[in-house]
Amino acid sequence: MNKQQLISEIKRKKSVLCVGLDTDITKIPAHLLGDEDPVFAFNKAIIDATAEFAVAYKPNTAFYESRGLAGWASLEKTIKYLNTNYPELFTIADAKRGDIGNTSKMYAEAFLKTLDFDSVTVAPYMGSDSVQPFLEVPNKWVILLALTSNVGAQDFQFSAAGEGEKLYENVLKTSQNWGTPENLMYVVGATKAAHLKHIRSIVPNHFLLVPGVGAQGGSLEDVLENGLNTDGGLLINSSRGIIYASAGNDFAQAAGDEAKALVSVMKRYL
Amino acid sequence: MNKQQLISEIKRKKSVLCVGLDTDITKIPAHLLGDEDPVFAFNKAIIDATAEFAVAYKPNTAFYESRGLAGWASLEKTIKYLNTNYPELFTIADAKRGDIGNTSKMYAEAFLKTLDFDSVTVAPYMGSDSVQPFLEVPNKWVILLALTSNVGAQDFQFSAAGEGEKLYENVLKTSQNWGTPENLMYVVGATKAAHLKHIRSIVPNHFLLVPGVGAQGGSLEDVLENGLNTDGGLLINSSRGIIYASAGNDFAQAAGDEAKALVSVMKRYL
Repeated sequence: MNKQQLISEIKRKKSVLCVGLDTDITKIPAHLLGDEDPVFAFNKAIIDATAEFAVAYKPNTAFYESRGLAGWASLEKTIKYLNTNYPELFTIADAKRGDIGNTSKMYAEAFLKTLDFDSVTVAPYMGSDSVQPFLEVPNKWVILLALTSNVGAQDFQFSAAGEGEKLYENVLKTSQNWGTPENLMYVVGATKAAHLKHIRSIVPNHFLLVPGVGAQGGSLEDVLENGLNTDGGLLINSSRGIIYASAGNDFAQAAGDEAKALVSVMKRYL
Repeated sequence: MNKQQLISEIKRKKSVLCVGLDTDITKIPAHLLGDEDPVFAFNKAIIDATAEFAVAYKPNTAFYESRGLAGWASLEKTIKYLNTNYPELFTIADAKRGDIGNTSKMYAEAFLKTLDFDSVTVAPYMGSDSVQPFLEVPNKWVILLALTSNVGAQDFQFSAAGEGEKLYENVLKTSQNWGTPENLMYVVGATKAAHLKHIRSIVPNHFLLVPGVGAQGGSLEDVLENGLNTDGGLLINSSRGIIYASAGNDFAQAAGDEAKALVSVMKRYL
């Protein structure tokens, strides 16, 4: 998917909502456990209930890999379902990959070709040649970690990286030589909304994927206020707050309601 | 596997050789392609031909994920084969994972429990709580990226991280508060053998996983000279140099010969 297609969908729905499919088989409603593939059945119901509100979906690969082959099968079915039934939605493999060039090329193959996601999250530690192979796939995106939403972000991301610059600032600045706002986005944690305004000044035109709204404590209004640009320019992710809105038979309806509530706030800003 | 078991195997074989199973289906001998699972058939033959020389095996997850479900099945069969037939060998999932706490916990589940590798490589960018869940699994290991062997290592790993310290040095020092030499190793690229002596002074007792010998240009003698400690303390990886030593019917024999040649150098130092 290209940038213009993503922007159209954002403007059409007045939404920058991304639904995080961090589907934990131990947390899904009991009545689904008899299904041949409970995780896919759950994802399918969540997607169908939230697709009129969301513009993006983000399965987190860890939750699938933890179940081995069965989990990988659920992941394949989920992305295929999204691509077949909702081709207008942006898809993100939240995989946090990154390795030497020949290996990153294989990861690009895995997520952007074999599974056919629109984008994949990538860790910056190994530098340019670990990111480049993902950027080379036409019409696909890298979403590079800049500032994350967890406590450990303090350990290295805020360390001084020369010239009074912090590491996450260095990552934002350096990586702008690798890709463009047409194929490169950044992960910026919402618990650091105070930093969003500053980050937006460094990367005025790039999309920012903002996790950490909801369960991790970030404020939706703060993110919208400080992060939006004329394209929208944000994908605000909620995982647990939506997908586990109810543990009962009404889980899909509850997820839809929660997505709708988030989007009603977004509409005020978009 | 605990540290003492690993050291015993190193001393018994006078070897610190790790065989990297970066198995690319487009590069394996044609006569295997008729097999039900050509990648597993290849890995099995390579393992059987090299196990008397090596102390560790390191499948690189990217090469398996690039083939989707079929690739993940080859990975499962490979680790099961190693654990069943060669329980004395140390196994490494070269996965370069790392995410917020609840997600890293799922990756720990995937690699250290479901697949049952002895260790997994982890990227440090997201800090302490992204690494901790892996360290909490008993008798398993984290191998944390410190200094990598690729060109992009220059982008951030060498950036100043306060107090005249480089980022990779900061990673080595900070992470020593997270784990011990009993559950934490470091990735140190062999193309930076000049830095190995310095790194050894920062982490005298930790094992170092050293990729980049061979195809990536690092010198085996330099690594041994600067990296060994009284435990051995190294796992020196060779992937392409061993597994693609021959593209013919004799590929396994050629891999064994190459492993034997590397170990004959190691014996002089161990």
